[in-house]
Order: sequence, then structure tokens, then C-alpha cells
Amino acid sequence: MIPSDPDSFPRTVGIVGAGQLARMMLQAAIPLGVRVQLLAERADDGAALVAPDVTFGRADDAAALAAFVAGCDATTFDHELVDAGALTALEAAGHAFRPGAGTVALAQNKRRQRHLLGSLGFPVPPHRPVDAPSDLFEFGAEYGWPVVAKAGRGGYDGRGVWVLDGPEAAMEFLARVDPVAVELLVEAWVPIERELAVLVARRPTGEVVTYPPVETVQVEGICHEILAPAPVASGLVADAERLALAIATSIESTGVLAVELFQMAEGLVVNELAARPHNSGHWTIEGATTSQFEQHLRAVLDWPLGSTALRAPAVATVNVLGRDEVDPVRRLPAALAVDGVHVHLYGKAARPGRKLGHVTALGQDPAEVRDRAVRAAGLLTGAVPAGSAS
Amino acid sequence: MIPSDPDSFPRTVGIVGAGQLARMMLQAAIPLGVRVQLLAERADDGAALVAPDVTFGRADDAAALAAFVAGCDATTFDHELVDAGALTALEAAGHAFRPGAGTVALAQNKRRQRHLLGSLGFPVPPHRPVDAPSDLFEFGAEYGWPVVAKAGRGGYDGRGVWVLDGPEAAMEFLARVDPVAVELLVEAWVPIERELAVLVARRPTGEVVTYPPVETVQVEGICHEILAPAPVASGLVADAERLALAIATSIESTGVLAVELFQMAEGLVVNELAARPHNSGHWTIEGATTSQFEQHLRAVLDWPLGSTALRAPAVATVNVLGRDEVDPVRRLPAALAVDGVHVHLYGKAARPGRKLGHVTALGQDPAEVRDRAVRAAGLLTGAVPAGSAS
Repeated sequence: MIPSDPDSFPRTVGIVGAGQLARMMLQAAIPLGVRVQLLAERADDGAALVAPDVTFGRADDAAALAAFVAGCDATTFDHELVDAGALTALEAAGHAFRPGAGTVALAQNKRRQRHLLGSLGFPVPPHRPVDAPSDLFEFGAEYGWPVVAKAGRGGYDGRGVWVLDGPEAAMEFLARVDPVAVELLVEAWVPIERELAVLVARRPTGEVVTYPPVETVQVEGICHEILAPAPVASGLVADAERLALAIATSIESTGVLAVELFQMAEGLVVNELAARPHNSGHWTIEGATTSQFEQHLRAVLDWPLGSTALRAPAVATVNVLGRDEVDPVRRLPAALAVDGVHVHLYGKAARPGRKLGHVTALGQDPAEVRDRAVRAAGLLTGAVPAGSAS
Repeated sequence: MIPSDPDSFPRTVGIVGAGQLARMMLQAAIPLGVRVQLLAERADDGAALVAPDVTFGRADDAAALAAFVAGCDATTFDHELVDAGALTALEAAGHAFRPGAGTVALAQNKRRQRHLLGSLGFPVPPHRPVDAPSDLFEFGAEYGWPVVAKAGRGGYDGRGVWVLDGPEAAMEFLARVDPVAVELLVEAWVPIERELAVLVARRPTGEVVTYPPVETVQVEGICHEILAPAPVASGLVADAERLALAIATSIESTGVLAVELFQMAEGLVVNELAARPHNSGHWTIEGATTSQFEQHLRAVLDWPLGSTALRAPAVATVNVLGRDEVDPVRRLPAALAVDGVHVHLYGKAARPGRKLGHVTALGQDPAEVRDRAVRAAGLLTGAVPAGSAS
């Protein structure tokens, strides 16, 4: 935090990228009097549509980034598609990135993530970098097929992850994908009972809090639903929270860190880290005392962190995944007629498969709240016809 | 609602005025994908600071208003300081004001309000317009002193209300205030046990909902605290809700209407109406399933209204009333350290007596939640020194 005016109070947060995470951070910034500066690529980016202070530029352009951060007390991220080298240089020059350049580099690179987490003693599936085809075949022979091949960089929402059934599938795969270009990583396929996620927030001076673990329901690698709290035994809840806390502390993350976990019969392994507010935490906007977006801003500015308590016994968040090109706002009246649902639209043009928003419902009973959220999300996508009986 | 393009979907709401109500409406608009256009007087108005689309102009300038509303599907208000004649003309030309020009005129003028509510049979204190000094003295002689003199126009937050103990005080008062210029009204002084407020929301097609009645704690006419639900017997709750519903339906208000009530030993009388989101409803942002700001936008766009259920057994909102000229953001870290409080700052320059924000706390026990909200608000104003034991 280096305010240029010694009398000024640090309160200006730069956000690199202007998607839905930035949009929801903006909402959280307004009541706190936090000033947000956005670095957006396009005027119709979801957050750029609703922000008063927008700079246009590419996040991977070091000069644009340097000019942008000069106006901010601290800078955070909507996505990880930045030049880590540029971050490191600006950090060395005294600018506060939250998370820091090191954590961003870790979040960008699944190889580095796996290696570090494994070497720190955290539970991860057996894994190996693939620099040559033989690495992949030897790994399959050692750990058994199927194996999971992952692009070290740039994959998200199921992209960049391939399950390979055996040597033949691996051969075919290697004919299509250059392991060096994608910084390929191979992992043992693990029998997953459930996917969990734990949000943890840490401020630079060390205070750290976790949110209750949630279940994330994925379909083809895309998160469809988040159910809070996760329907698991209290021992597993404690394990998941302990793990997330230990990771955040070990890597000295700042801001919100999402720790995605696989629940297996034998316990938990770490899947991936995201060093920012995360889809698995959207339920916190209404479902927790402090939303992940407010929490992230507090942590970025090194202010006290807020309560992470659940605000209802059951919370369900269902993503609005486009099925056609109809703007979901046109279907909003039908969705708002569903009792007690909270609709969040991201301002994005509709197209099939695109995350256009989410719906959260709260209540006493997990099945009942999920039903309401599913129904409202379905009305927004057209999966549930308007006017159908509720 | 007259969208200029038949293919477009009505979603652009104009807000006349750019204070804290507009600022909180903006926050509520983002997740709904509602586009907001602001008519602001100054670039540093609380809402103008955080809005991407701001037109500068005076709300009482008919030409500026006409140009502004041309870009909006419907227009609503941050305050009532508009030219009712201009609204009426634009409404006649087809523009959708929510509330309508008639309701705004009613909210602007306490004389008209009292007369209409009384003639519709709603309980109001005995009252009389004061066009000449003799009206005041005769009223005092008939109903007994003290009496309450009120400016028909322009009063708020205790301004424009005078309690007159007897004929001498009335004489002194009339030497200072011209009854014709302020459209003076005189009312019987009623023994108040408690002040209550009920929010009611109505959409143009008629759907109407009420929020649970709250107690508003006023000091010298300024609202300091809002306690939800009001600590009153269930019969009185039902009376208050019925009254608010009947008023909204009778006057065909659209959007949120705040009905301020006096609780006396004999029952309820109506104090005042505000035809917009209101300080007495700020608790709904976290304390109700649907905030008054989202509810207002839904009603303005004629979308289905949302649940008004409480989200916790006890909710307290405490206003942050400036005591000095220190920006409350500087004191935010101390306030955020209070467990589970929701801070809302309005982006206004601090000065003594000015409403700079509010703090809301939720929980099981009314006294406990009030304590937390009072403490956090006190830390923001400096009334509670930072670092004092909690």
C-alpha cells in the first residue's frame, strides 16, 4: 500500500479484468466506500458496464499494467491471465498486488501448483510433468489407466483436462496436443465421491478465516451447483478447513483463495487452487454473514476480516448456463416470481454453455432450497418454460 | 413503459437525484441487469461517484427532466424536490413515473397528505391548514396546547417541525415564519409511545406486499435507529400492516412507500408518507429476503415482487451521524472488527449531524444486535474511540 499522498487513506483497489468477479467486487465496494479502478479489455465486459472508472488495456501488456497500477493503492484480479513477470517487476518496485505475484504464478500453472503442494506435504494425487510422450506412458504403466492429462496453463471450466483410458487413447491424444506447448501434467485418476471447495481469506498481516466447506456439483468439468454446507460428516468438514487454512498460510496468499478438493473414500486430496473470489463462493453473497467479495476487498486493503458464518441452515447456488441467445433479463420476471430467490446476472451476451449468472436460495431444507434455485435458473435459461406450474 | 425500440426489453430506470437512496438502488440494480441512468446535480453526489451513466441537471428544471426521461423506460426518485407540474406534463405525454406525479405531489405536501388521508378515513391527528395567524390560535384553543406546526413543504429530518407550547410561543414563531410561504399546517400534539414505520411495495398492475413493521428511534426528529421487528403486540403489527396496505392501494402508489406511524395508547395514527425507499427500510438490505431497493426496482419495472420475510429474529440498523469532519472510511477498519456488522457508507463529505451511512447487525437477541450496531456506528463517527474494549 503506497498512497502517493501521505494524508490520503488507502482505499483504491485496482482490478485487473472486468468479468463477473470484478462486477460482484464492485457491488461489494460501494457500501464500504472503496474506490475501484478497472482494467478492462472491452466496453461491454460485465463489470465495465456498471463501473464509473474504467481503463481499457490488455492484462498481459506490461506497460498498460504499470500505468494502471500507478493509480491504485493495491491491485487484485478478476482472472489469472496476466504476465507474472510484469507483476514481479511491479511488486519489486513497491506496488501491492493481492494476491502477490508468486501466488498468481502458482494459480496460473497447475504443474507448479501440484509440485509445491506435494512438496509441502499436502495430499495431492500422484502426478508428473509430461515433457516427452514417454513420461505419459510410463506414468500410466506405473499408476494404472485411466490417467488424467491436464494443460498446465490456460485451462478452465473443463477445458484443458482429458481423461485417457489407456495407451491407445494417450497416443491419439499426443497426436493432437503438444505436451511442451501446453506444459502438460499427468495425474492418477482418483475415484471421486464428491467435489468440495473451501474458501479461505487471508490478509497480509496474517489473519486468516475459512468459510464452511461446500459441495460443488460439476457436469463435464463445469460447475453447475454449489450446496452449502457440504453434506459431509463433521470430521471431514474439519479436515477440509484445516487443509485450506494450512495451504493459505503456507503459500502466504492474500485475499480470497478457493481450495477445490476431491473427497474419496480414503479422505481428501487437493484438486486446484484459485487465488481470487470463485464460483464456489457465490453463495456467500446472501448465504454468509460476509460475502466473499467484501471479504476479498477487506483482505486486499488489510482490513479486519468478517464473519464467515452461514446465514441459513441450507444455501444453494445454481449457475445460469446459457442454452440459447436470449438475454436472460427478458426471462427475469418469470424467475423473480419464484419465492425468495436471489438472481445475479453478469451482463454477458447469451450463448450456449456460457455462464450468464447464478441464482441463490436460502432456507431450512437442502432439497427444498435447491429446487427453488434450480427452478429459477431454469426459467432464466429457458430450460423451464415460463408459466409452467411451480 | 414506452421502449423506443419494440424489440427492446424495458430495463432502464432513471433516478432523479443522486443521494444515498440512488446509491443503494444502483447496488441493487447490478445483479438484476437493470440499467440505471442518474440525474445528478453534482459530480460528488453519493450515487454519482459510483454510477457509469450520469446526466447533470437540476431536478426542478422541467427541460432537463424532459431530456433525461427520454432515455429511460421508467423514472423514479431519490428525493421529492422535483417540479410536480413538469412530472404531470411528462406523464400525460406517456412517460412512466413510478411513483406517479400525483403520489409525488402528495409526498411533497404535508397539507395535501393530511387532507387526503383524513378524507379517506385513515387515522390522522386533528389538523388544519394555517393561512392566517388566527387559524393557529383558534386551533390551539380548540385542541389545547402544545400544538405541532409543520411546514407543508421542504421539511425533513426534524427541519420544518415546531412544537409550540402556548399562544406566546405561537406569537414568537409567527414573527419568524410566514405561514403562507411555508404552507403551514397545524396538528394536535399527540402523546407518542413509540414511532413505527411500515414499508409497502406496490407494482402498477396492483400486486402489493408489506414488510414487517419496525420501530424507528428518533432524536430531535432525526432517525437514529431502526429495530426490526417492532417490539409490539401482534394485534398492533396486523393493524399497522393493514393500514399501510390500505393507504398504498387507496393512493395507487407504485414502488416502495414508507408509512410512518405514531403508536399511542389508543392505537395508531399516520404521521407521514415517503413515496420511495426510506431510511426506515435500510435494515432490509441484509435483514429481509428482498431489500427495499431491489423491491423498488421490481415494482418500478412492474416485475413480480419479492419475499419480505425477515432473515433473522432480530435486526438493528443504526445511522452513522457525523460528529466531526473525519471521513468515516478512515475509521472503517475499527468498525469492521465488530463481529458480523454490515457497514454502508454513502460517499458524502463528513460534517456534524449529517447522515454519512448506516450499520446493520442481525442475530437472535434484539439487545445484542443493537449493541453491535451502535458500537460499529460509534466507531465510524468517533463517538466510540478505536481500541476501546468491546
